[in-house]
Amino acid sequence: MEQKQEEARILKGDICYSTDKHTLKTYADSYLILEGGLVKGVFHEIPEQYRGAWMEDCTGHLIIPGLTDLHVHAPQYAFRGLKMDLELLDWLDTNTFPEESKYKDLDYARKAYNIFTDDLKRSGTTRASVFATIHIPATELLMQLLSDAGISAYVGKVNMDRNSPDYLCEESAMKSAMDTAEWLSKTQDAYPHVKPILTPRFIPSCTDELMSMLSRIQKEFHVPVQSHLSENLSEIDWVKELMPESKFYGDAYNRFDLFGGDVPTIMAHCVHSSPEEIKLMKEKGVFIAHCPQSNENLTSGAAPVRLYLDEDMNIGLGTDVAGGANLSIFRAMTDAIQVSKLRFRLLGNQLKPITMEEAFFMGTKGGGSFFGKVGSFEEGYEGDLLVLDESKIPHPQELNLKDRLERFLYLSGDEGVVHKYISGRKLF
Amino acid sequence: MEQKQEEARILKGDICYSTDKHTLKTYADSYLILEGGLVKGVFHEIPEQYRGAWMEDCTGHLIIPGLTDLHVHAPQYAFRGLKMDLELLDWLDTNTFPEESKYKDLDYARKAYNIFTDDLKRSGTTRASVFATIHIPATELLMQLLSDAGISAYVGKVNMDRNSPDYLCEESAMKSAMDTAEWLSKTQDAYPHVKPILTPRFIPSCTDELMSMLSRIQKEFHVPVQSHLSENLSEIDWVKELMPESKFYGDAYNRFDLFGGDVPTIMAHCVHSSPEEIKLMKEKGVFIAHCPQSNENLTSGAAPVRLYLDEDMNIGLGTDVAGGANLSIFRAMTDAIQVSKLRFRLLGNQLKPITMEEAFFMGTKGGGSFFGKVGSFEEGYEGDLLVLDESKIPHPQELNLKDRLERFLYLSGDEGVVHKYISGRKLF
Repeated sequence: MEQKQEEARILKGDICYSTDKHTLKTYADSYLILEGGLVKGVFHEIPEQYRGAWMEDCTGHLIIPGLTDLHVHAPQYAFRGLKMDLELLDWLDTNTFPEESKYKDLDYARKAYNIFTDDLKRSGTTRASVFATIHIPATELLMQLLSDAGISAYVGKVNMDRNSPDYLCEESAMKSAMDTAEWLSKTQDAYPHVKPILTPRFIPSCTDELMSMLSRIQKEFHVPVQSHLSENLSEIDWVKELMPESKFYGDAYNRFDLFGGDVPTIMAHCVHSSPEEIKLMKEKGVFIAHCPQSNENLTSGAAPVRLYLDEDMNIGLGTDVAGGANLSIFRAMTDAIQVSKLRFRLLGNQLKPITMEEAFFMGTKGGGSFFGKVGSFEEGYEGDLLVLDESKIPHPQELNLKDRLERFLYLSGDEGVVHKYISGRKLF
Repeated sequence: MEQKQEEARILKGDICYSTDKHTLKTYADSYLILEGGLVKGVFHEIPEQYRGAWMEDCTGHLIIPGLTDLHVHAPQYAFRGLKMDLELLDWLDTNTFPEESKYKDLDYARKAYNIFTDDLKRSGTTRASVFATIHIPATELLMQLLSDAGISAYVGKVNMDRNSPDYLCEESAMKSAMDTAEWLSKTQDAYPHVKPILTPRFIPSCTDELMSMLSRIQKEFHVPVQSHLSENLSEIDWVKELMPESKFYGDAYNRFDLFGGDVPTIMAHCVHSSPEEIKLMKEKGVFIAHCPQSNENLTSGAAPVRLYLDEDMNIGLGTDVAGGANLSIFRAMTDAIQVSKLRFRLLGNQLKPITMEEAFFMGTKGGGSFFGKVGSFEEGYEGDLLVLDESKIPHPQELNLKDRLERFLYLSGDEGVVHKYISGRKLF
């Protein structure tokens, strides 16, 4: 039964959260206090004014901030873990485009999006930035389903007007832009926690004409933007051919003013970004969605995450379902560590592996920052949290909180989430 | 209730198995027939003589061969997923040796080994080659627990008489060898499905004197051998210092006749094996236990698995808990694919990534071959099998058997195993 989010709520348990990428705070047997949906703080004793407030007693359980998935394709959830033996451009043609075309059929979309939304609700993800397809009715259905599930999300109707199969190509730049504007008008205030995000698929799918129009639409609606950047070497070569006047791939977005700055922007992957591209991302505050498992599955490579972290750039984690097979951001954290270790060893000890603290930071506060004050338990942060159950991963010895959390990331994941709150609202 | 294994048993369902590394056979809605604990065959209709035999009706479920874990450290299960931010030699000193010393205490061993055995029983693993510790009572306890759980396994009392902390070092080569011989006499025929395996930890832990004695013991007891090989670059340098007369790391085992040939041998890792080492492994039929996740976690590198497969060498998968955090060989299959893809991309497109069929082969028939005719459903193979439940990973579209299996590897794993048989014995 959902409580009113305005009331103070107390959660008692073993509390862990990041304040920055190096610092994991841990409070054994303590109290997390939420009020008006926001964090008031973490306390060893309940402060005077909150005694008697509603309390969820999770003694012995870990309590951590909710996780953010900065990059996930909802329509691809249906074919996650399938036909993984292909690289990006072949994988798009063979698996992705035929599957995405099915979302023209609202019945199929309902069946598939219900599975996605149910699983996302049960997962550790409290915030997500989601790609839909070019189809407006199915995209609106997805927004409604996510809203009903209580997830806080951005959802993008995808724009594609070139280099796409006939069955999944919008008929013109003008039609794509007009449909997008109409969809934005309709959905911008339709759901309390689900908002639209402008989503040109990637440069190869969008003509300059369409990109110009999307830029104007962005200025009119003040919506954020998400797309793909420097994921795969063949893709980068293709962008060079398509936009020879761009200095680098990111510049192709920047020329249309769709690359950070005043425009909150997520760019997924950034595996092969050049130094100039990295410099511009940093200047413009572009959020990098690091998707380590997808980059393995599609043989894209390993992003220089150590560099992005050390440069204090905006970075979070994405599952990139279905490039990534798993919906769990816990899994993305350990994938990020493992990929960074292989990168370090195979590329001659350049860029030290990332640590458990850094991976946890990226999956919570790092990605959460795209949504505002999200992903930490510092005062004023949104009351997004998870209560974790470790009973299925028993151990014979005493462990401290940091060790229990590390162990949970590697061994459990979404199936160990027993309670989930978003902005103080209890989902389960 | 366990049925008598001698009787014929029929399992009905969607049957998949490897005959070789390239070939995945699939039989929709078919019958797997076991008799005397062995596979008679897979049939579209029940043959005349088996009509009326006991049948487990698993219609709609996948049925696959049991999985083999060629390399797992039982005492390390307690600290899997903990303090992963170290490389091999530091990780041994900081995490492993202090933890393994606890198995001197039989009460601690019972608590920890019960957790390991319970989880292994529920997993997809039907055969395992297991490292214990130097402690004989705890090793015998582990053998008894595995036997009680019905798992078919080799278990090794570990030998270490140098370069080990005082609290985990055997007092002399002679004492280590005598204890080992006594343990072998006592356990060689003590359990029907659990057998001892000679287990010098690795060259750095064993003096030449001890290795000579172990070689004589091997000849007397005709037991197989397991150890570690060419896992980490610092380890390889250390072996060169310790045994300058050896031409390469593997030669240090071979000089004592503990490297394949007439001696069934598993060598774990083989990440950085030189061409001569690879040649000798091939000649001698050494089984390679490829442990992809451990090689990531301990920043060891990525083994040249494509080469081993293309050379038709003996190769299976290992979890290497706790270098690997996960006990699942399903997970090891997808880890193997992912690591091979990163290796391919980061090392300049050398050695093509391994395919789903190859990974499945390594986790079933490839590793199973160390145990005899294990890991396939060809006639005469041991009746090791798993029945899989895909109901927790719903999908909206029709899928063929190969796609369902690939999806299961990526998305489910051990928690989706609903029935498990070993040599025709039903464990659950």
